[in-house]
Amino acid sequence: MSKIWEQITNKAPIAATSDEAYMKTALGLARRGLGNVWPNPAVGCLVVKDDIVLGRGWTQPGGRPHAETEALGRAGEAARGATAYVTLEPCSHFGETPPCVDALIKAGISRVVVALEDPDPRVSGRGIKKLKEAGIDIVLNICRDEALEVNEGFFLKVLKNRPMFTMKMATTLDGKIAVHTGESKWITEAPTRQQGHLLRANHDAIMVGIGTASEDNPKLTCRLDGLEGHSPVRIVVDRRMRLPLTGHLVTQAQNIPTWMFTLGDQDDIRAEAYQAAGIELITPSKSNNENGITLDWVAYELAQRGLTRVLVEGGSHLAAAMLRRNLVDRLSWMRAPRMMGHDGIPVSQAFGVDHLEDTPFFDRTNLFNSGDDLVELYRRRDFDLS
Amino acid sequence: MSKIWEQITNKAPIAATSDEAYMKTALGLARRGLGNVWPNPAVGCLVVKDDIVLGRGWTQPGGRPHAETEALGRAGEAARGATAYVTLEPCSHFGETPPCVDALIKAGISRVVVALEDPDPRVSGRGIKKLKEAGIDIVLNICRDEALEVNEGFFLKVLKNRPMFTMKMATTLDGKIAVHTGESKWITEAPTRQQGHLLRANHDAIMVGIGTASEDNPKLTCRLDGLEGHSPVRIVVDRRMRLPLTGHLVTQAQNIPTWMFTLGDQDDIRAEAYQAAGIELITPSKSNNENGITLDWVAYELAQRGLTRVLVEGGSHLAAAMLRRNLVDRLSWMRAPRMMGHDGIPVSQAFGVDHLEDTPFFDRTNLFNSGDDLVELYRRRDFDLS
Repeated sequence: MSKIWEQITNKAPIAATSDEAYMKTALGLARRGLGNVWPNPAVGCLVVKDDIVLGRGWTQPGGRPHAETEALGRAGEAARGATAYVTLEPCSHFGETPPCVDALIKAGISRVVVALEDPDPRVSGRGIKKLKEAGIDIVLNICRDEALEVNEGFFLKVLKNRPMFTMKMATTLDGKIAVHTGESKWITEAPTRQQGHLLRANHDAIMVGIGTASEDNPKLTCRLDGLEGHSPVRIVVDRRMRLPLTGHLVTQAQNIPTWMFTLGDQDDIRAEAYQAAGIELITPSKSNNENGITLDWVAYELAQRGLTRVLVEGGSHLAAAMLRRNLVDRLSWMRAPRMMGHDGIPVSQAFGVDHLEDTPFFDRTNLFNSGDDLVELYRRRDFDLS
Repeated sequence: MSKIWEQITNKAPIAATSDEAYMKTALGLARRGLGNVWPNPAVGCLVVKDDIVLGRGWTQPGGRPHAETEALGRAGEAARGATAYVTLEPCSHFGETPPCVDALIKAGISRVVVALEDPDPRVSGRGIKKLKEAGIDIVLNICRDEALEVNEGFFLKVLKNRPMFTMKMATTLDGKIAVHTGESKWITEAPTRQQGHLLRANHDAIMVGIGTASEDNPKLTCRLDGLEGHSPVRIVVDRRMRLPLTGHLVTQAQNIPTWMFTLGDQDDIRAEAYQAAGIELITPSKSNNENGITLDWVAYELAQRGLTRVLVEGGSHLAAAMLRRNLVDRLSWMRAPRMMGHDGIPVSQAFGVDHLEDTPFFDRTNLFNSGDDLVELYRRRDFDLS
C-alpha cells in the first residue's frame, strides 16, 4: 500500500455510513422486485452491524419469500445485535408466510430502521408496536418519499382500490404516434424502444385498447435479453369482442396471462373461442353493465385481481379515456425529433378540456437522451396517496 | 499571498491561451450583434498581443462600424505586431465603410486568425489574399462550425436568397398551442415566455400568419427590460387583407417597421388605409401573381430586403406551409408539462406526410428547464449551406 494511501486512511476514520445511505441501498434492492411481486409490495432489506453489510434481501418473484427473510437468512447468526433497514414496515400477521416481525425478533436484531409505515390502515403500526414490545429500537420515516414512490402502485391498490397507471407513448415533437396511414414503425430509435421494453419488465401488466390490439397486432411481451421471463399480464379493453382470433394476443394466451375486458353478452361462440385460447374474459356484473365498460370499473377489477402497476400502451382513445378519468399517474414519453403535422394520429384523442386550467398537469421527474430521441418521465402533480 | 499559491504559480507558467479560446471569445462578441446588424453579418474581433487583449469589437447596430474597426480603435498604437482574431474574413472592398483589410494592415497587425472565409463567392478569399500580400500571417478555419452557426442567416441570404427561419412554439406535451376555444394565455410560464422575447431580440424580424395576427392581436415587440430597442421588423402574411385596422400591428406601424405580404389587388381603399398607417405592402409582380403568395417568394423577398434571421411565431397554418416547403431551419420549442387532447389547436396543420421517412428531422442542439417547462432547441438535420 502506498504511503499516500496510508496517510489518507490514517488521517481520519471513514465516517460511519448514515441510515439514509443504507436505506437508499435497501430501496435499490426493493426496486428489483417491481413488476414481479404483485399482489405484494416490492420491499428491500439490509442487515448491517459495525458498518458491515451482513445480508441483503428483496421480495422474491410472486411476492415471497419476503425481503426480511432473505436478508436474515444470508446474515445467519451474525444478525444478532445488528440493525435491519427495511423499506416498508415489517408484517406482523400470518399470511402465506410467517410474520417478518417474528423473524426479526428471533434473529436477535436490536435496531430496525423503517422507511415507511404500512399504508393499510388495518395493519399500520402493528409491526412496529410488536418490535418495540420486544425491546427493539425503532427509527421511522428514513427516505419516506422515495419509499412511497417505489411502492406507489401497491399503495394505490390498498388505499384507492386501483393500480398505478403509467402511460407510455412514443411520439414526434408534435405529439403524433403514427402517420395518417397508420405507419408507426418506427418513430423512435432502437435504444429508445428498448427503454419501452424495460418499462414492460417493471410493470405487472400492459393494457391496450382494441384499436391498438387489432391494428398493430402487438405481442406485448418483454423482449430484452435475459428479461423474457418478466413479461407481464396482457390486458385488452374490447367492449365488442373485435380482437382478431389470429392475433398474437389470442394465439399466445396459453403461455402469457391475457385478460379481456368486454361486455361479453354479444357473441357466445366468439367468447368461447377466446376462452378456449386461454383468454380470461372479465365482464361487468348485471348492475354494472348499465354503464358498460368504464375505466373506473376496469381499474377496480385490476386491483381486485392484485395488480399494482399497469403500463398503458395506447392507443389514443384509451389514453383520452384514462386522462378524462384522471387515472394517469405517470407518463413515460419517448420523443423523436421529427415533425408530422395534424393529419398524423394523435397521442390522445379529445378528452373534454375547455379551459387551460383543466389540462392535466405533470411534474417532470427525469429526462435523458436516447440516441436522437428524448425520454421524458412525468408524475401527476396533484398526486395524493392520503 | 499564501505559500501554497506561490508554489502553484511558480511551478509552471500558465499556458498561453489558445487560438481556439480567443476565437470563442470573438464569437461571443459576434453574437451580440445578432438581430441588430442586418443586412450585414454579425462579426466579432479581438486584438491580442503577448496574451493581453488590447481591443474587442463587434458589428454595431445597423451593420457598421465593423468589428475590426471597433477593436482596432480600442487597441490604438498597441495593435502594432498584434494578432487579430476575426470570426469572418475581413472585407476587402469599399462598401459603406472603407475595407477592414486596409485598416488591419495600416494598424500594423502581424497575424490574423480567421474562423471562416466569406461565403460570397464573388469576394471569398480576396481579403485573405490582400492580407497575405501585405506580409501578414494567416490562420484559417479556427472554430469554423461555430462561426457558420452564428451567421447561418447571413450565409443563407447570400447563398440561397432567403433568410434563416426559426420557428418558435409554445405547446403542451401533446403539441397543442391552445384550447379548442382559442384560449392560449398562458400555456407556458412567465420565465419561459421571456425566453421567447429574447428570441425576438436576436432575430431581424418576426413573421406570423393572418390567423394569429387577427385572433391574438399580438404586438410582436421585444418587451424585455433594456431590450425594447431590439424590437424587430414585423411581418404578416395576409393574402386577402383581413388584418384588422384597429389591431396593434396596424396602429403601431408608424413606430415599428411592419410589412404585409398580400395579393393587394382586392381592395384599394383597404390597401390605402394600411399604407396610411405605415404598413409596407409587398405584392407579387404580375408574373408571380399566378402562384399567389408562395412562401418561396416570401422568403426571396425577405432576403432581397436584407433580412438574415426571421422568427416565425405561428400559427399552425403558417407552420405547416413552412414545413411543407422545407424552410424551417431551427425550432425553439417551449413545452409545458400538460396534456390537452386532440381537440386542442395543433402546433402545425397537416403538411403532406404520407410516410415516416418523409417527416422533417431535426438535431437537438440544446435543452434546458425553465421552471416547470422544458425549452428544446433544434436545427434541421439535412442542413447544407454549400
